[in-house]
Amino acid sequence: MIGIGVVGYGYWGPNLARCVSEAEGSRLAGIADLSPQARKRAAARYPAARIEEQWQSLVADPAIDALIVATPTRWHFEIALAALRAGKHVLIEKPIASSAREAGILIEEAARRGLTLMVDHTFVYTGAVQKIRELVSEGAVGDIYYYDSTRINLGLFQSDVNVIWDLAVHDLAILDYVLDARPLAVSATGAGHIKGSPENMAHITLYLEGGATAYLNVNWLAPVKIRRTLIGGSRRMIVYDDVEPSEKVKVYDRGVSVAETSESPEAPDEIRRLLLNYRMGDVWAPQLSVKEALLTEIEHFVDCIEQGKAPMTGGASGLHVVTLLEGASQSLKRRGHPVELVGMRQAS
Amino acid sequence: MIGIGVVGYGYWGPNLARCVSEAEGSRLAGIADLSPQARKRAAARYPAARIEEQWQSLVADPAIDALIVATPTRWHFEIALAALRAGKHVLIEKPIASSAREAGILIEEAARRGLTLMVDHTFVYTGAVQKIRELVSEGAVGDIYYYDSTRINLGLFQSDVNVIWDLAVHDLAILDYVLDARPLAVSATGAGHIKGSPENMAHITLYLEGGATAYLNVNWLAPVKIRRTLIGGSRRMIVYDDVEPSEKVKVYDRGVSVAETSESPEAPDEIRRLLLNYRMGDVWAPQLSVKEALLTEIEHFVDCIEQGKAPMTGGASGLHVVTLLEGASQSLKRRGHPVELVGMRQAS
Amino acid sequence: MIGIGVVGYGYWGPNLARCVSEAEGSRLAGIADLSPQARKRAAARYPAARIEEQWQSLVADPAIDALIVATPTRWHFEIALAALRAGKHVLIEKPIASSAREAGILIEEAARRGLTLMVDHTFVYTGAVQKIRELVSEGAVGDIYYYDSTRINLGLFQSDVNVIWDLAVHDLAILDYVLDARPLAVSATGAGHIKGSPENMAHITLYLEGGATAYLNVNWLAPVKIRRTLIGGSRRMIVYDDVEPSEKVKVYDRGVSVAETSESPEAPDEIRRLLLNYRMGDVWAPQLSVKEALLTEIEHFVDCIEQGKAPMTGGASGLHVVTLLEGASQSLKRRGHPVELVGMRQAS
Amino acid sequence: MIGIGVVGYGYWGPNLARCVSEAEGSRLAGIADLSPQARKRAAARYPAARIEEQWQSLVADPAIDALIVATPTRWHFEIALAALRAGKHVLIEKPIASSAREAGILIEEAARRGLTLMVDHTFVYTGAVQKIRELVSEGAVGDIYYYDSTRINLGLFQSDVNVIWDLAVHDLAILDYVLDARPLAVSATGAGHIKGSPENMAHITLYLEGGATAYLNVNWLAPVKIRRTLIGGSRRMIVYDDVEPSEKVKVYDRGVSVAETSESPEAPDEIRRLLLNYRMGDVWAPQLSVKEALLTEIEHFVDCIEQGKAPMTGGASGLHVVTLLEGASQSLKRRGHPVELVGMRQAS
Repeated sequence: MIGIGVVGYGYWGPNLARCVSEAEGSRLAGIADLSPQARKRAAARYPAARIEEQWQSLVADPAIDALIVATPTRWHFEIALAALRAGKHVLIEKPIASSAREAGILIEEAARRGLTLMVDHTFVYTGAVQKIRELVSEGAVGDIYYYDSTRINLGLFQSDVNVIWDLAVHDLAILDYVLDARPLAVSATGAGHIKGSPENMAHITLYLEGGATAYLNVNWLAPVKIRRTLIGGSRRMIVYDDVEPSEKVKVYDRGVSVAETSESPEAPDEIRRLLLNYRMGDVWAPQLSVKEALLTEIEHFVDCIEQGKAPMTGGASGLHVVTLLEGASQSLKRRGHPVELVGMRQAS
Repeated sequence: MIGIGVVGYGYWGPNLARCVSEAEGSRLAGIADLSPQARKRAAARYPAARIEEQWQSLVADPAIDALIVATPTRWHFEIALAALRAGKHVLIEKPIASSAREAGILIEEAARRGLTLMVDHTFVYTGAVQKIRELVSEGAVGDIYYYDSTRINLGLFQSDVNVIWDLAVHDLAILDYVLDARPLAVSATGAGHIKGSPENMAHITLYLEGGATAYLNVNWLAPVKIRRTLIGGSRRMIVYDDVEPSEKVKVYDRGVSVAETSESPEAPDEIRRLLLNYRMGDVWAPQLSVKEALLTEIEHFVDCIEQGKAPMTGGASGLHVVTLLEGASQSLKRRGHPVELVGMRQAS
Repeated sequence: MIGIGVVGYGYWGPNLARCVSEAEGSRLAGIADLSPQARKRAAARYPAARIEEQWQSLVADPAIDALIVATPTRWHFEIALAALRAGKHVLIEKPIASSAREAGILIEEAARRGLTLMVDHTFVYTGAVQKIRELVSEGAVGDIYYYDSTRINLGLFQSDVNVIWDLAVHDLAILDYVLDARPLAVSATGAGHIKGSPENMAHITLYLEGGATAYLNVNWLAPVKIRRTLIGGSRRMIVYDDVEPSEKVKVYDRGVSVAETSESPEAPDEIRRLLLNYRMGDVWAPQLSVKEALLTEIEHFVDCIEQGKAPMTGGASGLHVVTLLEGASQSLKRRGHPVELVGMRQAS
Repeated sequence: MIGIGVVGYGYWGPNLARCVSEAEGSRLAGIADLSPQARKRAAARYPAARIEEQWQSLVADPAIDALIVATPTRWHFEIALAALRAGKHVLIEKPIASSAREAGILIEEAARRGLTLMVDHTFVYTGAVQKIRELVSEGAVGDIYYYDSTRINLGLFQSDVNVIWDLAVHDLAILDYVLDARPLAVSATGAGHIKGSPENMAHITLYLEGGATAYLNVNWLAPVKIRRTLIGGSRRMIVYDDVEPSEKVKVYDRGVSVAETSESPEAPDEIRRLLLNYRMGDVWAPQLSVKEALLTEIEHFVDCIEQGKAPMTGGASGLHVVTLLEGASQSLKRRGHPVELVGMRQAS
């Protein structure tokens, strides 16, 4: 039974704590939060858990084997590093850290000590994303042409990071998991509309090795909630709509292919058009696992700790995503000027 | 009764011809198309109209007062210029021409001769766009923050222009009509997936005078048809979904505003968040005119000819849009590198 | 080339006339309508067709081989009978006649003369209904449990028939085509809300031979348009949503089956529940033919005339449907009191 | 602080227990369930609560002021009666009891002892139903024409009651709360498709005093989940779609009215049609309270106990609904034969 402490009991922390308490193999050993109201709620809900104001108390507790860091992003690094140095395994809410430099230090520290370092890229653990990876891996989509995602709603404005560091993380994590293609360059545009707040809206284009492109549209200030991703390929296309209560993933047997006829550049338009075949076939919505993603993730964390396995969303995923966030933020400041992503890790 | 000839009876021409035949005040005088099959269909449908292979025959016909050009884009300029020089009024399918230079020449020619020059920016004549302009003009939306449009489907690949010149035109025309804000710079990214075809997918960001931004997502190779535009403002937000059979335009009384409290930079996150007010109010779908947009447009064309009025979508609109298309195409080639739009006309 | 005359050029007649003019093998020979405006529209659209005030002129015309009757229901019988007696083939807009007695006389007259008698049950000719019949026939649905249809909108109130005779006809025709099951009894309820108008809302239950049931919800006074049919079976279930622009037919691999364990009546609830297996499998939307149903139907009419074949929606279908309409109307007056349907034809 | 015990910790009981623990003014004092697994889950979640196998232990506990009965329906009466006799206030999951007779006895017992008796008609406490009642009460809908509800999905088959006693209860409770119109007669049809299970599908028509009608379509064996209610009125119409994540209630300014012209029975169809005005106006989605309905309900229960107020869904509502369930079940057995509802309470 792995004893787990949770630092941060604000918006996302309660979900993590609940999953720790429900998962096989883990025990909710402690919760820390600066806010007295949060501690009161935590104590009422988990009378058996140790409730603390300071995260240091959890780090110092020998009954705690692993720490989950669910604080605002700017504190991730300090807390996670202290926990690793105290010999605790660590799971960090996304993004893993405020910079690629910080992420690198955490990875090194965990590696040196043989500890599990994992980042909470929750979507990777959903039935939908698992199925999409399976479809892509087995070739059902063919060559990947593009990934195009819209992730917008009237959301909580963060005070310390812009919308890219909040919402685009999800897509970058999914991309990393599903496509395994190295990004070469990024162009991003965006704007902030509320005085004193960071950018609340951004559009990002990633140029991937092999020719595919990825587009992300993220927005905290939209009137409606949209969570929809299109994946276009040479054989089939996928629509993943996370707002749908059922049929979240649909596979379209649709596309365009070039006919094998010898093309004459002299041919009039009408004829040239005929040389493209438009395929409009069936649509298929595979049944998906309905197990809660966060619970799956916590059980995976426990499993990695116990078996010494590499997590599906380990420190390297976290670093990968943060590197892209840094590149996108740079490009955003320069109104879309493309930023080369040198030194990105090779596709695994 | 204005006698009107239609050049091009392929995909869009039949709709124009039908509206000419149905509109008050116009008479379908002739149709020209290079394809024998197209001419056969035209003759069967309009036994009273003159059917010709060569557009020159219509230009030379004194019974024809005005010409509609519905050919592939690359022929717009030559045909329209000849028609103007023959003293005919001209309506040109979008985009008005292949370049800003060509558009400028057509505008000059029409002005010199006192002829009506109009571009077929159909969406401007829909009940939906009319209502949106009305809402924006009367201040219902407040300060415009952004325009964000997705216009994708599995569409006909054009052979002579990329997707920007086909689909983005619609949004640029709507923007021009609704917002009246001068674009300052453009960043565009995109890709082509079918060998030998131009780019079939693009994402465009426009930086507008006054601080608003506009985003366009256009795609010929998408598995589903989406036609949805979000307009965010300081007072309200609009969603325009053209695929919806009814309730195409919805007005959301939602938004975020900064509370008037004095903010302390020392305040913890939880408190700073409270200083933003999230407003979640009613939603309202105004009833829209259901008159066919193209019929409205043809009647407006006839009216402009008869009354000597300036069209809502005259040559200047056409030039404006083509200038943006040129800027976006340049940026696309440079992977999002922003292109300054010098010399764009002042907001009217 | 079959010369066809169309009687009635009001709401539906123009569609029939257009399809006659477009179909292979037919020629639009004449149109009759009492209204001068309708005749004016018809003449402008079809300058080559004979346009008459009185239907008798078409019946008397030897150049007309077949007549389509698209008038209000109460005139169907008189016109169709006269046409048959004049040796014309006849296609009648639904419902075929005002009573089963009238329908029987038309069937007899057509049979005696060896003429084609067909009823315009348009939905039978859609790609959607064709696919559904195929799925049901090949056993994909298993044993049919139920057919449950909602067909409502803010529609044109008819003055001479209630909503059952207008909207329920569509479902009764689809049922007849897809299920081939003899109805045994009918219960119907309903109400009229507009003074002086017949019932504008009704709910009908049909008890079918073999144990299946069919439910129809029809309404002229609904705020939204819904056209959705559920077909439940022992193996799969179908949802047919005619308002959807694509994916009109979806096949759900879902259902409930009884487990093969020996059931103990003593078993507590929780255990008894486990004995039912809930199956939640994939969803599949087959690609459908997009050919216009009415054009398919007119070509089928011409084909039946030329080949002497029995139509898919011949007089017997028309009679079948009218018999059900009469039964439902009787039950409606008695607030749901079930009406036995004696003498309905055997399932074919 | 009211001490509350919950009997039954299966499907719905955990939600009730959670709300008791979260509500202001109540304390979760005990939970009883026959199943060891349920008791284990309850104990882990609520270490401070008394966990018992037998409900009698809670009834006998003086620290428990009120009991919530969340068992299968057939045990409601016995447990509730014992609790009332022990001087406890009682809240019963819907339906209140297995028969009108039982419901009457509970009402009498509670009245005699001055105890609060309430039934868990959860939907009455939703923001949506609260808003609908407000709209109806203030006359926004005008005269009520009809209530038409579809409540279907692939749901848990109950072993002791048919689908009417499970799903139709919700609509009957909403109807009782929103319309205040006395039902005069009921016609119901339905079928069971799974051997050994009660009817899983039913259609019910209620004839209401004043001329309105209500229609309910309930089904445990549907491939998709639909929760949609239409309310038609002389001034406006409402669509309540509970599956929608937002905009659950929409108000349509649509309808049909008879023009004030003198009608001639001789007038031809086309003219008579013009005498009906079809109104197609705006659509409006009011913002709704998003507070959890069950929490609102529990707080109302506590408030009624403390203040001695009559609950919004008291014993009389429970009896009213059960009386309708009995009538509908009778009619169902007779294939729609209408059942008069004599002795229904007067509209309040």
